Amino acid sequence: MFQHFDELSQKSASAARLALLRAEMARRGLDAFLVPRSDEYQGEYVAPYAERLSWLTGFSGSAGLAIVLADRAAIFVDGRYTVQVREQVDVRLFEPHDVTEEPPYQWLAGAIAEGAKVGFDPWLVTADQAQKFRTACAKAGASLEGVAENPIDAVWADQPARPANPVAAQPLQFAGRSTADKLGDIASSLTAAGADATVLTMPDSIAWLFNIRGSDITHTPVALAYALIGADGSASLFIDADRIEEDARASLPEAVSFKPPGGFAAALAELAAAGTAVLIDPASAPEAVRATVLASGGNVVTAADPCLLPKAKKNATELQGARAAHRRDGVAMSRFLAWLAREAPKGGLDEIAVATRLEALRAETGELREISFDTISAAGPHAAIPHYHVTTASSLKVEPGAILLVDSGAQYVDGTTDITRTVIVGEPSAEMRDRFTRVLKGMIAVSRLRFPKGTTGAHVDALARQALWAGGFDFDHGTGHGVGSYLSVHEGPARISRTGHTPLEPGMILSNEPGYYKEGHFGIRIENLLVVMPATSIKGGERDMLGFETLTLAPIDRRLIDADLLGPEDRAWLDAYHDRVAREISPFLEAEDLAWLEAATAPL
Amino acid sequence: MFQHFDELSQKSASAARLALLRAEMARRGLDAFLVPRSDEYQGEYVAPYAERLSWLTGFSGSAGLAIVLADRAAIFVDGRYTVQVREQVDVRLFEPHDVTEEPPYQWLAGAIAEGAKVGFDPWLVTADQAQKFRTACAKAGASLEGVAENPIDAVWADQPARPANPVAAQPLQFAGRSTADKLGDIASSLTAAGADATVLTMPDSIAWLFNIRGSDITHTPVALAYALIGADGSASLFIDADRIEEDARASLPEAVSFKPPGGFAAALAELAAAGTAVLIDPASAPEAVRATVLASGGNVVTAADPCLLPKAKKNATELQGARAAHRRDGVAMSRFLAWLAREAPKGGLDEIAVATRLEALRAETGELREISFDTISAAGPHAAIPHYHVTTASSLKVEPGAILLVDSGAQYVDGTTDITRTVIVGEPSAEMRDRFTRVLKGMIAVSRLRFPKGTTGAHVDALARQALWAGGFDFDHGTGHGVGSYLSVHEGPARISRTGHTPLEPGMILSNEPGYYKEGHFGIRIENLLVVMPATSIKGGERDMLGFETLTLAPIDRRLIDADLLGPEDRAWLDAYHDRVAREISPFLEAEDLAWLEAATAPL
Repeated sequence: MFQHFDELSQKSASAARLALLRAEMARRGLDAFLVPRSDEYQGEYVAPYAERLSWLTGFSGSAGLAIVLADRAAIFVDGRYTVQVREQVDVRLFEPHDVTEEPPYQWLAGAIAEGAKVGFDPWLVTADQAQKFRTACAKAGASLEGVAENPIDAVWADQPARPANPVAAQPLQFAGRSTADKLGDIASSLTAAGADATVLTMPDSIAWLFNIRGSDITHTPVALAYALIGADGSASLFIDADRIEEDARASLPEAVSFKPPGGFAAALAELAAAGTAVLIDPASAPEAVRATVLASGGNVVTAADPCLLPKAKKNATELQGARAAHRRDGVAMSRFLAWLAREAPKGGLDEIAVATRLEALRAETGELREISFDTISAAGPHAAIPHYHVTTASSLKVEPGAILLVDSGAQYVDGTTDITRTVIVGEPSAEMRDRFTRVLKGMIAVSRLRFPKGTTGAHVDALARQALWAGGFDFDHGTGHGVGSYLSVHEGPARISRTGHTPLEPGMILSNEPGYYKEGHFGIRIENLLVVMPATSIKGGERDMLGFETLTLAPIDRRLIDADLLGPEDRAWLDAYHDRVAREISPFLEAEDLAWLEAATAPL
Repeated sequence: MFQHFDELSQKSASAARLALLRAEMARRGLDAFLVPRSDEYQGEYVAPYAERLSWLTGFSGSAGLAIVLADRAAIFVDGRYTVQVREQVDVRLFEPHDVTEEPPYQWLAGAIAEGAKVGFDPWLVTADQAQKFRTACAKAGASLEGVAENPIDAVWADQPARPANPVAAQPLQFAGRSTADKLGDIASSLTAAGADATVLTMPDSIAWLFNIRGSDITHTPVALAYALIGADGSASLFIDADRIEEDARASLPEAVSFKPPGGFAAALAELAAAGTAVLIDPASAPEAVRATVLASGGNVVTAADPCLLPKAKKNATELQGARAAHRRDGVAMSRFLAWLAREAPKGGLDEIAVATRLEALRAETGELREISFDTISAAGPHAAIPHYHVTTASSLKVEPGAILLVDSGAQYVDGTTDITRTVIVGEPSAEMRDRFTRVLKGMIAVSRLRFPKGTTGAHVDALARQALWAGGFDFDHGTGHGVGSYLSVHEGPARISRTGHTPLEPGMILSNEPGYYKEGHFGIRIENLLVVMPATSIKGGERDMLGFETLTLAPIDRRLIDADLLGPEDRAWLDAYHDRVAREISPFLEAEDLAWLEAATAPL
C-alpha cells in the first residue's frame, strides 16, 4: 500500500516544541521566527525531515506558515484548510488566520515592536515572499535576518534524515525528448532573456530537464537536487553521484556534470562572482539563491523558470504515454466502480476499504509506480470537504442514500492520472441530482469548448460555473490545474481558475473538476483530465481553433443526472463520451465488470 | 446636426508639414520627435487644436503615434485602424505599423543611433509611456528629452484655438451626489493610499468630481481643466473662472477654489516642494506632472485615479437617469428602425441619409444634448469595418439583400446611450442568419449571466464568443466597455474583454456588443448597455449573485435569427426582452411606428 490511514498530526506535542523553539530563538536573539511549510527546493510537497511546520504546530496541510514571537504565535492557511487547521492545531498556542483575509506580512507588521529582529531560513522562503516580509519589517521598524541554520533543526531531536533514494532514468521512449535537446532549448531561452545562467531548485523542473525520476517525495517521483544551467548548454547537477543509477547516468550528455550537493552554494557564489547574469524565478527560487547571487557580484534577471512552459507542453511521445496510462487507469477505475456498485449497497464498506480496494485494483495493472496523491475517499458529509483525508479515526461507513466522492490518481511510467467520480449508493435526492447535473454541465461546457490561441484558464473558468451560478451556487476552488507526465499531479504554469493568466497551449494537460459542496451534508466533484489539442480547422469555420481531448476514461454516474436539465449538446457530449469509454475499456473487462460497464455507459 | 460627413484628413498636405516639422527639429537639435494622438489632459478624445497627429499624417483615428526621424518616419496604430491608416496616410512618408506587433518603443530603439536626442512633449505622453520610451532610448544609447514647447505648434500656422466654452452645473437631481460628498470620499481614499494630494487631468474625472459639464470636446460633455485635490478635502480647479456658469459656481462647496489654468504647473511645483506625497495614476497622468512633482521635491504615490471607481459605480439617481435616457432613446431608435423598415426596401437611402435621420429622430425627443459619438452607419461591406466612419465620398447606397449596421448613441442630461442594431434589407442569406444568431447567443449569454462578487470582465468575455468559437469564428474587439453618466461613452476601469481585470461591481454600466465581420462582404454587431445589479438571492440558491439589468430598449431584427440555433433559454430571454421593449416603448409610438413595433417584438 502506498497510502496509510494513520493520523500523524501531534497536537499534544505542540506546547513543548514551541517552548523549545522559543528558547532557541532567545539564544540567538531573535524576536520572531517564520516557519513555512516548504523545503529548500520549493516544490509543492516536502519530505518528512522538512515537515517543520507540522512538527511544531500539528498542521499537516500542504501549504501554510507559522510566525512565532516570544509571547504569541499565529498560523496562516488558505481557504482549503481553514476547518482542518482548527482541528489539528492548538489554537491557544497558534492563532489561526486565513492567509487571504489577513496575510502574514500584514499580521507581522502589526505584531512586532520597533527594533525587533525577525529571523527566517532563506532557503525555505522564496525571493518573492522574502520581499514581502522585508517590506513589512521595514514598515514596523524591524529587521529581517536570514539565519544560517534553522533553529527548528537544532531542537528537533528525532528529525528524520534527508532522503537519498536511487535516481532512475526516465527513458526516451516515455520522455520523448533527450536532455541534450532540452538543454539546448533552455540555453536558447536564457540567451533570449539576456541571462548567462539559471538556477533550478524545483524538483519537477530538474526531473523533466534531466529525464530522471526518484522517490525522495511521497507520491511524486522526483529527486531532491540543485542545478546550474549555462546559456552555453552546460549543466551541473548537485546530487550525490552514487544515487544515480547507471541508466540515468548513461543517458545524460557530457555537458552535464555531477557535483556534491554540499557544494551548491559555493558554486553559485563562484558563478555569480564573474558578474554573471543569473535568471531567477522569484516565485520559486529560495531567497538564499537570490541573495547569494547579489552578494557575490552577480546580476539577477527576473523571469519564470525556463523549464515551466516546455515541461507543461507535452510532446507527442508524452501524449501517447498519457493516453495509454489513462486507458490502463480507466480499466482499474471501471473495475473499481463496478465493484462499488455491487458491494456498497450491501453495507459494510467504509472509506478506508474503498481507498484500499482502488489502490489494489490499480496495483493489479502491474504498472503502478505510486499513487499520485492520497486518495480522497469521502462518504456523506465528508464529501463536502474538498480536501478530505481519511484516517482510521475518521473513516465513515458508506451508508445507503449517501454520496461517495473518490478523488484519486496513479503514477505510471508513461503518465500521471487524476480522476474524481461521485457516485450514489441507493437513491439520490432531487437536490443531489440537481447539483450533480449543474456540476456536470460545467464540466461538459469546458470539455466541449473550442477557443482561439491566447485564451487563458481565467477566460474559461466561468464556463465551468455558469450552471451553478444560475442557481445561486458556486465552488471555492479552481476548476483545474496542470498535470505532469509521470511527475507532479499539480503542475504550472497554466490553470483553469480566476487567476490562470497563462495561455492554454497545445500539449498542456489540465484537470477539469468543478464541484459543489454542502457543508455537513454532501459534496460533488466530477474530474477528467484534458489535453489542449493543436489548432484544427472547423468545417465552414474561418479561424483555427484549439480544443480539448479528454484523457480520462471512466463512466459518470447516470443515476445522479437530471436529464431534463441537460441541453441537447450536453447530452450528445455525455453519450459520445460514454460510448468511447465503452469502446476503449470493455476489451479489458470481464464478466460482471463488463456487464456493469455496458449498463453504465448506455445512452441517457 | 452634431455629425458632419466631410473627409477632413489631408493626406496631400503631409509632405510639406513633415518638412516643416523636420526643419524645426533640426533647429532644436532633435534627432527624433514623438507625435502622439493626445492632449495635455490625456482623455480619449481631443479638441481640434490637439489633432497634431492628424495634421501631420492625415490619420484621424482616436489612437495612434508617429515617430519622426530626420530621414524616416513611422506611424503606429492598433488593430482597429490598420486598414484606415493605409487609406489616410501617405505610407511613403510614414511606415505604418501595428502597435501590438511592433510597439513604437521597440521600433525606436532599433531606428535611432547611439547618442541621438529624442524629443517629446511631456504633457502629451503619460508617465507609463514615457517610462517605456526612456528604457528604449537607454537601450539604444540615446537620450529622451522633454521639450518645453511643442515643435508642431511652432510650425502649424492655422492651428485652431484652444476651446474655452461655458461650463454648466450637472444638477444634483442627475448627479445624485454633491461635490462636497465626493470630495470627502476622494480625501479618504487619498489618506488610505498614503497620499497628501492628487492631480486630476482626465476630463471625465474632473467633470464627475465637480459635477460640471462642458463642450470643449466633440460628443463628450467635458471641460478641459486641471485639478489639485488635497487629502484635507480642499480642491483647486485650474480653469478660467469666467467660463463657469453661475449655477455651477453656486453648487460647488467653499473648499473649491478657481485658479487660472496657466498657473497649474507652478502650483503643482509649489505643492510638491513641501515634500508632499502626490498620488499619480501613471496610466493617465502626463509625464510632465510626474516629473514636476519629483523635480520639486515631492514624493510620487503610484495608484489608480481615485475618481475612476466611484465614477464607474453609478449611484441610484444616475441609474434612474440612465433608465429614463434609455427609454427615451429606445423610442427614437424604434421610430428609426420602423422608418428603415418602410423606407429601405424602396431603395434610394444611403449611409448618410440613415445617420441623418437617426440624429433627427433623437433631436425630436427635445432632450438631445449631443450624440455620444459619430454614428457608424455601415451598409453591406462597410459593416465589416467595426469602426467605419461614413463621409460624402464613402457613403454607400442601402441595397436590397444588404445588411445595415448602425452603431450610435446620445448624450442626454440624465444619461449616455450606445446601441448597435444590425438589420437586413430584404432577405438575408443562410450565412448571415447563422452568424447573426451566433452573435445573438453570445449577447444573450452575457445578458442572462448571474455571477459572484469578484468576477471580472475577463472571466465573462468568453461567454459572448462561445457560439462563434464553436463554428470557427471570432471577433477582434472586446465584448464591452464601461459607459459614463452624461459623460464619456468609453469609461474605465471595468470592461468585458480578455484584459478586463477590474471586478464588476453594482452600478457599473457596460456595453455588451459581440460581433462578426466578414471582410468585403458584411458585418454584424448587436449591442445593449447593461448595468451590474446588486446581489440578490436566487430562490433555492445558497449564495448572493450579481446580475445584469438591460438598459437598452429596441427590437432585435427577428428576420436575421435562425431559431433552430437558439436554446430554450436563449429564446425565453429574447421573447421576454421584446415583450419588455413593447411594454415600455409602445406608449410613446403612434400609427405605423406602433404597428411595426408590435410585429417586431412578437414572440419568436
